[in-house]
Amino acid sequence: MAIVTLTTDFGTLYPASMKAVILGICPGTDIVDIIHSVPHADIRAGAFAIYSVAEYFPEGTAHIVVVDPGVGTSRKAIVIVSGGQYFVGPDNGLMVPAAEKLGDPEVYEITNKDFLNTVSSTFHGRDIFARIGAFIAKGMDVGEVGGKVDGYIGLDISDAVIRDNCILAEVNYIDDFGNVITNIPHNLLHRKILPGTVLQIARHCVPFLHTYGQVQVGDILCIIGSHGFFEIAVNQGSAAEILGLRSGDRVNIQIPENK
Amino acid sequence: MAIVTLTTDFGTLYPASMKAVILGICPGTDIVDIIHSVPHADIRAGAFAIYSVAEYFPEGTAHIVVVDPGVGTSRKAIVIVSGGQYFVGPDNGLMVPAAEKLGDPEVYEITNKDFLNTVSSTFHGRDIFARIGAFIAKGMDVGEVGGKVDGYIGLDISDAVIRDNCILAEVNYIDDFGNVITNIPHNLLHRKILPGTVLQIARHCVPFLHTYGQVQVGDILCIIGSHGFFEIAVNQGSAAEILGLRSGDRVNIQIPENK
Amino acid sequence: MAIVTLTTDFGTLYPASMKAVILGICPGTDIVDIIHSVPHADIRAGAFAIYSVAEYFPEGTAHIVVVDPGVGTSRKAIVIVSGGQYFVGPDNGLMVPAAEKLGDPEVYEITNKDFLNTVSSTFHGRDIFARIGAFIAKGMDVGEVGGKVDGYIGLDISDAVIRDNCILAEVNYIDDFGNVITNIPHNLLHRKILPGTVLQIARHCVPFLHTYGQVQVGDILCIIGSHGFFEIAVNQGSAAEILGLRSGDRVNIQIPENK
Repeated sequence: MAIVTLTTDFGTLYPASMKAVILGICPGTDIVDIIHSVPHADIRAGAFAIYSVAEYFPEGTAHIVVVDPGVGTSRKAIVIVSGGQYFVGPDNGLMVPAAEKLGDPEVYEITNKDFLNTVSSTFHGRDIFARIGAFIAKGMDVGEVGGKVDGYIGLDISDAVIRDNCILAEVNYIDDFGNVITNIPHNLLHRKILPGTVLQIARHCVPFLHTYGQVQVGDILCIIGSHGFFEIAVNQGSAAEILGLRSGDRVNIQIPENK
Repeated sequence: MAIVTLTTDFGTLYPASMKAVILGICPGTDIVDIIHSVPHADIRAGAFAIYSVAEYFPEGTAHIVVVDPGVGTSRKAIVIVSGGQYFVGPDNGLMVPAAEKLGDPEVYEITNKDFLNTVSSTFHGRDIFARIGAFIAKGMDVGEVGGKVDGYIGLDISDAVIRDNCILAEVNYIDDFGNVITNIPHNLLHRKILPGTVLQIARHCVPFLHTYGQVQVGDILCIIGSHGFFEIAVNQGSAAEILGLRSGDRVNIQIPENK
Repeated sequence: MAIVTLTTDFGTLYPASMKAVILGICPGTDIVDIIHSVPHADIRAGAFAIYSVAEYFPEGTAHIVVVDPGVGTSRKAIVIVSGGQYFVGPDNGLMVPAAEKLGDPEVYEITNKDFLNTVSSTFHGRDIFARIGAFIAKGMDVGEVGGKVDGYIGLDISDAVIRDNCILAEVNYIDDFGNVITNIPHNLLHRKILPGTVLQIARHCVPFLHTYGQVQVGDILCIIGSHGFFEIAVNQGSAAEILGLRSGDRVNIQIPENK
């Protein structure tokens, strides 16, 4: 049973023609929408989205990932193979965190046009990536798409650093609840911050806890989210709104000194 | 052919990892999204959503239903069997109206951890309910999840009452059109209100009709909706906006006296 | 492998019961959501949506298309067959541009009630169109739904005209990026406007280009979109917002005179 997933910033209508192409090439494919409302052209947010879910899919899954402000320019189209899964999309860093999490990535550039029909200048999602993803899901050897390449554009979404008693972080993603998911991986905090510690985030005193329900409705807290990153949340409210934060913004977190 | 449905307040990204888990356990499952935009933590709205659609699914369907403000606390995780269908989610009343509509519910508490991997404290939708739902869809006997229990937390979404000439009601759900769906079941009105009657709702005179097109564009009306509840609507407009109503609000409806 | 698609203005919850009906009749169907957020009762926008994707689906696909302000009135329910694909919905022009693009349409009126259960007055999408679409996807001969009819309500979404140096156009659709898709088909401009030409649109000077990235972020441009229509866009911004345009609005485009 073939599985193809879709992660894009295409909104509501355009993904349907990608699905049409996929089902035309590989009938019966299970197509899973990861998300189509990645903020427009926000590569880091798209990278977080596919990163947060890829590991739960079985081997053989083909992930089509398209947040592609460079469509129609000279950026490469690539397939990354990692951990038995496939990532098909533009060479702009978007698929790298997910692929690197699953194993040791191998990268192929899509140069063989035998698998393509007419290619528009604005919709490679439908005209290139959906077709290649469907053929891979159908069992095509990935080497058929073109030659293996050594380099690819990287992206690190776990790149927060600690300086003195301050974590210098960025916002990877704002979810639909308004939870602020940072680029602080859980292991950066290991043994540094104990549960119960109160952190200082933009003038707010924020307790580091285990689950949303440990504070009153409307109160702010921070946790390690189910995706493995440090997350700022409000119980049944929007931390992004209260803190005025958006995807890509910087956020500094003060750790209290041990005395 | 296994069918699994998903009803959550998770928004756009998180359901994908539930689908990954389901397809990993039971390849080829038909996964149907009921809705993922239930207002956050609104158990009554979530209950209405699954209630309004469950009867149309064939026997054997496993419904995963997660609106779960108590995640990470001591609330039970349960499976309800009713009318040959399965409901998997938290024990907070959410699945009860749907299950009771289909037949005589039997309830099992999920205690057997053999079917689970690591369980996070914030995402039981992925780590517990998706796994159990997939195993049930695959044919696992429901008794495998744990022991049968007698009690469960109830919820009545048909609990409007008539006092004198007034129906004391609540809003079950606001749909995407802004239609206000109440907790007045159609049989409560049977023979009490004839089609054509003009009701008084929050200073508006609202005719009780059969279909939206019976009034001019922009005009208010009320009908028995396709879900079987009394509904206030505006032809091509939003009754919720005009009446200032939200899910959970109280609304009183004056019936004219027979003279 | 049967494919059924859904194009509606139903929003988030109601399509699920259509899917339940389809899977009950034809287990294992691949159901593809085209879009459920067509602006409410906007037949032209719905027509554009299915028009823009139908050609990518394989033969045998059944498209259920429901934007139906006349539900419950005397408008006909029809099936259109064209290019080996099926379109099931109301007779209000909605499915005509898609069907005419694929070939020479044959139209059948749905009059045979053998395939229906109880029909509500407000939800023909679930009670009529989903059932008929599923039976067709399952292999039922389309003649079983009722008699072939000669006439049907037409709709032309390519009806822009050129007068002197002005294109008199309308907005077919505003996509999720805010791109303004007009009713100007690409062949109307053939040889009339060369790439690089600067057009005058509502006081804006808009260059006619090949792809979004040819202007700076925030700048306006126009292109032939991947759907084959003239489209006004802003690189990583919303042309609809800047021009104050909505679906159905008129828009005039001044072509510079050749000297």
